[in-house]
Amino acid sequence: MRELMEKIREEGEAISDHVLKVDRFLNHQVDPELMMRIGENFADAFRNEGITKVLTLESSGISPALMTAYILKVPLLFARKRKSLTLQNDLYTANVYSFTKQEYTEISVSRSFLQKDDRVLIIDDFLANGQAALGLTGIVQQAGAEVAGIGIVIEKAFQDGGEQLRRLGFRVVSLARITSLKEGVQFAEEVMCQ
Amino acid sequence: MRELMEKIREEGEAISDHVLKVDRFLNHQVDPELMMRIGENFADAFRNEGITKVLTLESSGISPALMTAYILKVPLLFARKRKSLTLQNDLYTANVYSFTKQEYTEISVSRSFLQKDDRVLIIDDFLANGQAALGLTGIVQQAGAEVAGIGIVIEKAFQDGGEQLRRLGFRVVSLARITSLKEGVQFAEEVMCQ
Repeated sequence: MRELMEKIREEGEAISDHVLKVDRFLNHQVDPELMMRIGENFADAFRNEGITKVLTLESSGISPALMTAYILKVPLLFARKRKSLTLQNDLYTANVYSFTKQEYTEISVSRSFLQKDDRVLIIDDFLANGQAALGLTGIVQQAGAEVAGIGIVIEKAFQDGGEQLRRLGFRVVSLARITSLKEGVQFAEEVMCQ
Repeated sequence: MRELMEKIREEGEAISDHVLKVDRFLNHQVDPELMMRIGENFADAFRNEGITKVLTLESSGISPALMTAYILKVPLLFARKRKSLTLQNDLYTANVYSFTKQEYTEISVSRSFLQKDDRVLIIDDFLANGQAALGLTGIVQQAGAEVAGIGIVIEKAFQDGGEQLRRLGFRVVSLARITSLKEGVQFAEEVMCQ
């Protein structure tokens, strides 16, 4: 998605070989119009998959996932990162290791909101080592539902999450694929959904 | 907002005198089309306020706030509930007590994204004791910016947060005002922005 790549070039900041800061438009400050066009791109890519629900992980996944769900006219469901007092029983859960935060987090979804006949589109802001996306696929599978696809805003293609997910047979669509952060941001030549 | 009140009647669940569960459409599963109409209502209410930025608190505030920012054509900024490794320095912070979680949380916003000339619309999903909204107003004031208004999806009018905020001179617009949860959900007769 060309507009997204330009935005990353202009406003993203590679603060190490592995960390790209995009808090000007994606995960702290958010550009709502860009989110809508990201949602349109994901909706186009998965329109024929019979999606019944969009699933993401709080908090940075919510904005692109909400717009995708809006365009597809299906509910959004966001996994929570820890239990709250009003959401305790009857959960599907998975443990996710965050390399950024260097800790394990339990992510959970209420059993009420995933059914066997759901075809779930998983959306997340970043794909690096794939831990969050794998956790979300695990939750969908616990419900006996189907992962109909995985949409990623920014894939760090130099880490192995995307390869792992594709090897497991999941259809992964990344709107921007970054091959290196060593000398500025380098993108993969082949980018789906321009 | 009549549609919201009907949704609360149909799908909300009063699980105690003080706790209303709305995780079917607002803070776990999310109804994207309802969020868009909520955004339109807030945008209508604050259209003449010269809003330059919408500010909310992760995670449940993001969906209604994103749609509001989308309609108003301004950036969304969401305060984070704790520091992450990629977002550590130069923060405005406030301490917020959550009665639901029974703990203090530090909320923070990067100094880069709030300027003196910003006119900020604060959006949140719930207003009860007002702690979160007060924390957000504190952050805006630390930046020397102006709180141009506060938009609340569901106000629990039997708790004193709304009164506190209005007494401080803030313009608070609540799309649904609940006066009691004791015998089902009771709404205030006068509801702004139907």
